[in-house]
Amino acid sequence: MPTLILLRHGQSRWNLEDRFTGWVDVDLTPQGEAEAVKGGELIKAAGVQIDRAYTSVLTRAIRTLWLALASAGQTFVPVVKDWRLNERHYGGLTGLNKTDTAARHGADQVKIWRRSYDVPPPPLAPGGEFDFSKDRRYAGATLPDTESLKTTLDRVRPYWESEIAPHLKAGETLLVAAHGNSLRAIVKLLFGVGDDAIVGVEIPTGNPLLIELDADLKPLSARYLDETRAQPLPAAA
Amino acid sequence: MPTLILLRHGQSRWNLEDRFTGWVDVDLTPQGEAEAVKGGELIKAAGVQIDRAYTSVLTRAIRTLWLALASAGQTFVPVVKDWRLNERHYGGLTGLNKTDTAARHGADQVKIWRRSYDVPPPPLAPGGEFDFSKDRRYAGATLPDTESLKTTLDRVRPYWESEIAPHLKAGETLLVAAHGNSLRAIVKLLFGVGDDAIVGVEIPTGNPLLIELDADLKPLSARYLDETRAQPLPAAA
Repeated sequence: MPTLILLRHGQSRWNLEDRFTGWVDVDLTPQGEAEAVKGGELIKAAGVQIDRAYTSVLTRAIRTLWLALASAGQTFVPVVKDWRLNERHYGGLTGLNKTDTAARHGADQVKIWRRSYDVPPPPLAPGGEFDFSKDRRYAGATLPDTESLKTTLDRVRPYWESEIAPHLKAGETLLVAAHGNSLRAIVKLLFGVGDDAIVGVEIPTGNPLLIELDADLKPLSARYLDETRAQPLPAAA
Repeated sequence: MPTLILLRHGQSRWNLEDRFTGWVDVDLTPQGEAEAVKGGELIKAAGVQIDRAYTSVLTRAIRTLWLALASAGQTFVPVVKDWRLNERHYGGLTGLNKTDTAARHGADQVKIWRRSYDVPPPPLAPGGEFDFSKDRRYAGATLPDTESLKTTLDRVRPYWESEIAPHLKAGETLLVAAHGNSLRAIVKLLFGVGDDAIVGVEIPTGNPLLIELDADLKPLSARYLDETRAQPLPAAA
């Protein structure tokens, strides 16, 4: 039976500082590391055998995957990394403290950028501290300079369809360790969540979301492995 | 310029107990973890940018690679894991304490098994504690039940030729994090070391060996990144 586990990375250094992170490659805090280890222990306790794993090219998701695979006793699983599983690109907000951003742009505008489905922040200015275009991990890719959740989904979808879905259709059990918004995009694709509803879906960090799928990849069941920290799941469309 | 870094994993739990490990999936000790982190710091300090990395399907090599990539600031590098980079399979000696083995088989016989090029230990008995044939990480592979250094090289060579060498010939910089004997096999292939000499080549743990190669993959230079812990290198044939 096709099985998918979604695992959101835990606390990063900029979560602590309340800054817009997006594509900036900040590492996990010790608490974030502990969340990842716990996630792997939950996978092990559930007896899930992972066939293949996916993550972004950002350290906080990659290390979450590594720590979880280690504590699950499944280090040997093949892993694929791709920028299309990155967090949403926060454009010109990248690196800004959220309080400062509200003071500069107004709290209402910031709320729109954070909580609307299709309104992207202003683009990231090229050549600045957070210009990712010269980072070799993105060599050859056509990169966005800002993203809404909608345009995040627009780049997650082709990756999902070409690289992930075929392995599920072959009956594999996959683990995707990624970010709040790239995982929202996958949840929206799988569960057919509406544009307005998806921005309210919160996937808890470090808590593996186990989704069993039918042969057409329609969700049959979904549950968090740590039930004490579950969040409401979207109803399938 | 084709560039290859060889990194041998550091201390594992069975190194401490002086047991024949081979394919048993024992983890690193804290000291082994620190060696891996240090190896990555040396790679970072040398300014080496890795394009692709390889390791075995054994946790002590995989975690050495992960820890080194993290401390090198290069978590995003693509990683391939393959059993053909595993440690030499120690057959029927697997799991035995080296002192007990000497008492049982005689010190001279044990020395032959450990230090000859082409004499394998007795085969591993099927169905015992260390029967790897049902381990899913080896699904589909035709596995040995014991190996000499020669037969270790016999399975490293086709992997080297089909999976690693083409990327070097394309000018990439590769990192191989593996084991004493699979790395010996690669050194023998690259430097044309003789059968008798190769068993005396000791690659230090956690000390990246940087090899620059010409277009035909003949070594042009080789140096350990921690020069204070270097071991003699084979002269190119």
